[in-house]
Amino acid sequence: MQESKYGKVTPELIEEFKKIVPGKVHVNGDINEDYFHDEMPIYGKGAPDVVVEATTTEDIASIVKLCYENNIPVIPRGAGTGLTGAAVAIYGGVMIDMSKMNKILGYDKENFVVKVQAGVLLNDLAEDAQKQGLMYPPDPGEKFATLGGNVSTNAGGMRAVKYGCTRDYVRAMTVVLPTGEIVKMGATVSKTSTGYSLLNLMIGSEGTLGIITELTLKVIPAPKETISLIIPYENLEDCIATVPKFFMAHLQPQALEFMEKEIVLASERYLGKSVFPQKLDGIDIGAYLLVTFDGDNMEELEAITEQASEVVFEQGAIDVLVADTPAKKKDAWAARSSFLEAIEAETKLLDECDVVVPVNQIAKYLTFVKSLEDDYDFKIKSFGHAGDGNLHIYACANDMDEAVFKKQVADFMKIIYKKAAECGGLISGEHGIGYGKMDYLADFAGEANMRIMKGIKEVFDPKMILNPGKVCYKL
Amino acid sequence: MQESKYGKVTPELIEEFKKIVPGKVHVNGDINEDYFHDEMPIYGKGAPDVVVEATTTEDIASIVKLCYENNIPVIPRGAGTGLTGAAVAIYGGVMIDMSKMNKILGYDKENFVVKVQAGVLLNDLAEDAQKQGLMYPPDPGEKFATLGGNVSTNAGGMRAVKYGCTRDYVRAMTVVLPTGEIVKMGATVSKTSTGYSLLNLMIGSEGTLGIITELTLKVIPAPKETISLIIPYENLEDCIATVPKFFMAHLQPQALEFMEKEIVLASERYLGKSVFPQKLDGIDIGAYLLVTFDGDNMEELEAITEQASEVVFEQGAIDVLVADTPAKKKDAWAARSSFLEAIEAETKLLDECDVVVPVNQIAKYLTFVKSLEDDYDFKIKSFGHAGDGNLHIYACANDMDEAVFKKQVADFMKIIYKKAAECGGLISGEHGIGYGKMDYLADFAGEANMRIMKGIKEVFDPKMILNPGKVCYKL
Repeated sequence: MQESKYGKVTPELIEEFKKIVPGKVHVNGDINEDYFHDEMPIYGKGAPDVVVEATTTEDIASIVKLCYENNIPVIPRGAGTGLTGAAVAIYGGVMIDMSKMNKILGYDKENFVVKVQAGVLLNDLAEDAQKQGLMYPPDPGEKFATLGGNVSTNAGGMRAVKYGCTRDYVRAMTVVLPTGEIVKMGATVSKTSTGYSLLNLMIGSEGTLGIITELTLKVIPAPKETISLIIPYENLEDCIATVPKFFMAHLQPQALEFMEKEIVLASERYLGKSVFPQKLDGIDIGAYLLVTFDGDNMEELEAITEQASEVVFEQGAIDVLVADTPAKKKDAWAARSSFLEAIEAETKLLDECDVVVPVNQIAKYLTFVKSLEDDYDFKIKSFGHAGDGNLHIYACANDMDEAVFKKQVADFMKIIYKKAAECGGLISGEHGIGYGKMDYLADFAGEANMRIMKGIKEVFDPKMILNPGKVCYKL
Repeated sequence: MQESKYGKVTPELIEEFKKIVPGKVHVNGDINEDYFHDEMPIYGKGAPDVVVEATTTEDIASIVKLCYENNIPVIPRGAGTGLTGAAVAIYGGVMIDMSKMNKILGYDKENFVVKVQAGVLLNDLAEDAQKQGLMYPPDPGEKFATLGGNVSTNAGGMRAVKYGCTRDYVRAMTVVLPTGEIVKMGATVSKTSTGYSLLNLMIGSEGTLGIITELTLKVIPAPKETISLIIPYENLEDCIATVPKFFMAHLQPQALEFMEKEIVLASERYLGKSVFPQKLDGIDIGAYLLVTFDGDNMEELEAITEQASEVVFEQGAIDVLVADTPAKKKDAWAARSSFLEAIEAETKLLDECDVVVPVNQIAKYLTFVKSLEDDYDFKIKSFGHAGDGNLHIYACANDMDEAVFKKQVADFMKIIYKKAAECGGLISGEHGIGYGKMDYLADFAGEANMRIMKGIKEVFDPKMILNPGKVCYKL
């Protein structure tokens, strides 16, 4: 077994940990099984020998140093909401539960940043910033992930089309290296050309290069008003073809999501509430755009709505339904936000793919994916971010044998990842590689890029103790 | 001598080069001395043994492969407009002149990207995009740098305050590694979580990790109208204090520059034209903001001007001069764009510093820097980007011995870099580290970060042949 290269977590070592963080060290029977997997259990389970509740950067550094000296795996974990098995202790060792470092340390309103501990939940920062008249723009579907987790996957989310991804909002971070050293990367500035960007290398590295303990994040003045539009189309092609037209018309939607009818129905069943029209003027609706605009006042947004309506009707939209009250906006977005839960509620066996393709390839790509459905015993459901080409494709089965499901899914995934690459896309838009997507990354990136990634891993983590067996480095 | 570790560029090797790129290989006496230095000759000179005019990615790969096999330094060079000696062949070897790969390969208007060869000049892309109704937002002061050079320093420029830096516009690149392998990084997508971001590591690596040969860059629909405002203040403190107020008022200037009176006067002398008022209502003007807003129509911009005027008058502005015609805008910005040339024209000995500090530290920092002037025999001139805290500080002398100048400047720089770090800033906002700022980077970044940077350099470039002795790795 590979893990034999690692040292054992001895009772003596556990006593050392307890001296560093008294009352925060959990072992064996005392560890909740939730820690054994993430939100996609199909990528395997693994029990850590020890779970440590994170307290301070310095304490984490002390624990990591001990693990470094004793060759023990260290697995940082946020809220465990990942979808690729990145936060699972596949070689045992010490799991550091970062969700316990959850303080918002303070806003700097002259420089438009907020300093947080890495375990703060996205939802908590979003709500707190709002109270300050500010907005933290990244808005991934999962609101109860930690910000450290968001940074570790460069999470994108709904508002990426206007505001960019998590990467664009990370100004600085404090990191515990696999050696136990504490380093700072970046600063409260928006411009830098100060050596290799270790900050940008850490972003999206899924807890394999260092443990992020504190973050300085950019915030912006909160938009004063928003308006959402539900735009039904007869089919997905017309729906997707609208997307570039928004930008050419100088419209800047805050969010621009597409959804096929089937998944909207599933979501509405899950929520017990129907908001999206299924038939209009005798036409069966096949797909929808859900669009949000933000601005300084409702007059501005009404003008934008008028302009957007012209654009979409020219592209074959059947109607434009305006959600301009908090209740209506909540209803419209509730359906979108519940897609994953709705799928999970109806599905026993689940696997997913998170490719990103150029925006003008979405319709072609999804048509191809849908065409494969007859070849397999599972169902395919998809939704995604029309504004940025990030697609979430789910293989769902209820009556299949798990081994057969896994075999069929492996075949399916191989085909659709290859197709994504042919369309000029990438393996993952925002969920990451973790443990579940390593082979697809290796196939895609090619030998030289993989050699460089592995080399970088060795530079940061010469003993391979930090989150081993993830992203690019198989043990 | 360190360079003894490198192989010799033999006549046989030169013949090999000539077979790969006939007519594009220049040796010894045939090499223009402009290739021996960049725009800041104080950082030393160096003659390459050979200059090759770049033709294609494949040809560059073949040449680099030969250099790799024979242990010969390779120095990529754009337009030679750098300010840190990054593009100087300090160990001889083969210089690859990328400015010869200068084709705009095509626009993809559905995905809002343009594909270019790395030697295209910023100015050429800017003008060409404009003709297409598009804008390439990064706008560094030096318009005649190559885009490859801009990417290699993560160049920022005037419009960074609204649109971000070069980093934010790089979607994909083709790179020749120091081994001669060709790799692609990134894709025509805005979202990614596909392994370590080698793309972001290449950005700002100053030609030390790979040779960028092609770029896919994000473009946006061009704003339809712009308006510029010259806003005079009695002193720099009031001027700088205005900056955060713009953002809190939801104003999003495209550019937001501060300038002290002395440098404006120098620039106007250089241009032979006076635009900026020196005295108003009996008050001596000490500093100015130069602000540009963009929008869809002049009514919108007039409303913004009114709102901006309220903001600045509350902060002690003496007046607001509106430049709303092409001629007026050109005059206002001509002064700003000529600062460096104006300084160069009046100055024999010149050194510069390009720190970036948090926006609310600018006034404090510059007051400190100015207070040092009495300690030295040179003059200090400064200007910079008020919106993002990036400051260009020049030490200028005409009657000093060069050795004395260098000694005094070294002392001065050490102090002001240290102060920038104390203010929460970084060594360079956009000019980079190159050869001239290596000691300051090492002092600032600390041991662990420097070890990681050096390790990364070794992973990309195991034989240390690519642009040796720059950024983080002294030979």
